[in-house]
Amino acid sequence: MGRIDDVIAVLQPPCAAAAREAGRRLDAKTKPRGSLGRLEELAVALAGMRGCADFPVPRPAVVLMASDHGVAREGVSAYPQSVTVEMLSNLARGGAAINIIARHAGAELFVIDLGSLAEKPVEGAVDRRIARGTANFTTDPAMSEEQAVRAIECGVDVAGDVVNRGHDLLAIGELGIGNTTAASALAVAFTGADPSSVTGRGCGIDPATRTHKANVVRRACALHLADGPGPLATLARLGGFELAALAGVVIGGAAHRLPVVIDGFPATAAALAAVRLAPRAAKYLIAAHLSPEPGHRLLLDALGLRPLLEFDLRLGEGTGAALALPIVGAAVKILREMATFAEAGVSDAGR
Amino acid sequence: MGRIDDVIAVLQPPCAAAAREAGRRLDAKTKPRGSLGRLEELAVALAGMRGCADFPVPRPAVVLMASDHGVAREGVSAYPQSVTVEMLSNLARGGAAINIIARHAGAELFVIDLGSLAEKPVEGAVDRRIARGTANFTTDPAMSEEQAVRAIECGVDVAGDVVNRGHDLLAIGELGIGNTTAASALAVAFTGADPSSVTGRGCGIDPATRTHKANVVRRACALHLADGPGPLATLARLGGFELAALAGVVIGGAAHRLPVVIDGFPATAAALAAVRLAPRAAKYLIAAHLSPEPGHRLLLDALGLRPLLEFDLRLGEGTGAALALPIVGAAVKILREMATFAEAGVSDAGR
Repeated sequence: MGRIDDVIAVLQPPCAAAAREAGRRLDAKTKPRGSLGRLEELAVALAGMRGCADFPVPRPAVVLMASDHGVAREGVSAYPQSVTVEMLSNLARGGAAINIIARHAGAELFVIDLGSLAEKPVEGAVDRRIARGTANFTTDPAMSEEQAVRAIECGVDVAGDVVNRGHDLLAIGELGIGNTTAASALAVAFTGADPSSVTGRGCGIDPATRTHKANVVRRACALHLADGPGPLATLARLGGFELAALAGVVIGGAAHRLPVVIDGFPATAAALAAVRLAPRAAKYLIAAHLSPEPGHRLLLDALGLRPLLEFDLRLGEGTGAALALPIVGAAVKILREMATFAEAGVSDAGR
Repeated sequence: MGRIDDVIAVLQPPCAAAAREAGRRLDAKTKPRGSLGRLEELAVALAGMRGCADFPVPRPAVVLMASDHGVAREGVSAYPQSVTVEMLSNLARGGAAINIIARHAGAELFVIDLGSLAEKPVEGAVDRRIARGTANFTTDPAMSEEQAVRAIECGVDVAGDVVNRGHDLLAIGELGIGNTTAASALAVAFTGADPSSVTGRGCGIDPATRTHKANVVRRACALHLADGPGPLATLARLGGFELAALAGVVIGGAAHRLPVVIDGFPATAAALAAVRLAPRAAKYLIAAHLSPEPGHRLLLDALGLRPLLEFDLRLGEGTGAALALPIVGAAVKILREMATFAEAGVSDAGR
């Protein structure tokens, strides 16, 4: 992982002094101390990440990584595999949910194809395909470790590109038929949970298919986890190109000291993979929402994150992350724009 | 309540056909059915309120009603009573939290003074004062019924004015030192709860003051509820000018078929008062958040509402309601702007 190791090496913990200074500034604002609750906690955490209490109002970007999955051939999804490419085209034309919500949040959307089955590059998506879909991980590793490294490096590069375009807040999302199956397998690998407890309905499968999906996850984990692989090997064997790339975005974002807002179950599995590779990245994560996928809370707990929203979102694409972006923006504006008791001539005798 | 009764008489239930049509449109969008969870539920509910599945992206307004409370003289608050007027001035200069969050949400802010103790009208607030503060309800009714009716009428009028300025989504907030004590008393009156279970820290009192505050609420309720007063008499005796006015905004908003996003504990108490006066108004309410005030969940349960956010907000001013406005906007845009499976050429074979 040569180049990735170099990036991981530069990761810094959040700046405690900046966080404290943000807390002091918030305490001087015209409100009872702490009365904006989690909004204040968020502002303090953001100051720590950015390393400064006087950081600008964020200019968010949504990074959507897409790929196909060999395991989709096991019949684990409610939708045919062709939907990955069809949805990439829909995204390019602006018709998908994430187009709407990202625009609503004032976020630029970046769509990168890491490994779809498309015959030719999909217009509107950046073609960074490593292969046409992963291998079916019930019989083979989903990726070689070399492929996984390339996907992670792509994510690191994309994070850098997005920063170079003036963005300083990242939201991550994914698209890939079959990727909740991969996320379930990663959840088993990284948390030790039983496959049945972390395998859910995905985009809408029936109970029988869910049982089948859990068995697919169980078989894959039996095949690939027996030798106690490290995080890279685990991600390669059970992940997906888009999930590895999102892990790279997390690591790259954290290296740039940017907050990374994570979406649902697959994106959170990717974030946990990133943290297993680069533990310091954990402190740059913001959990947007809790999805109904049964493994999602387990992953968030493993990351020590409390989600901002509980909206029963199970679409992916980064929709939940984008929906949370205005909340992050509000937290920053509270810190930057509110008057202090002294400025406003308001009595602070209550404290 | 002559004029108010006329307004209440025109309240309609939400349009079930419009809600169904919105649900059908959402099911045709390029996403698994129901996969946007509460965002879809919100869009469907909004269509019912507006009476049309093809309603525009909302142009929100935050209506902040302010007043002083006689009960503040009982020493129930963390802040001196002068803070109500000081904060009105801060609001007028744009330095308060709600100024920041309303602007962030693209909402126009309307500040109306129903009964502050200010010597002269506060610049930037609309002066609609009925009296300089309510009476101390531990010994007297907070308001006469005639005063309460005037305050409700003011709220109805303001709702109409806001509609006339082109707004079609209302968020309500309040400002008034002592008003969580009034809200606690209303919660006791409307739900039958014990005063100690619905009396909280307000803006930050210590445990001893909280015990005192609960006793104040208990005494007031013993004095004013013995004869089983109706909702108007209850609101007059135990409420406040700003709370009665917010009840009027809820009734007026519902009469215009507008969704009304409610804020924390006092605003929710006002909304429950409105619903006791005008039960059909209940269906036009959206609960923005759950505050740490112990009585808030009880009031939301009485209204049948599930809050969008749980952020430990306890500032008031409509901050929580304004924070939720971008979520409401996103729900509407999903309904209006997403492509359908047919438009996008995406396979819907999963269903």
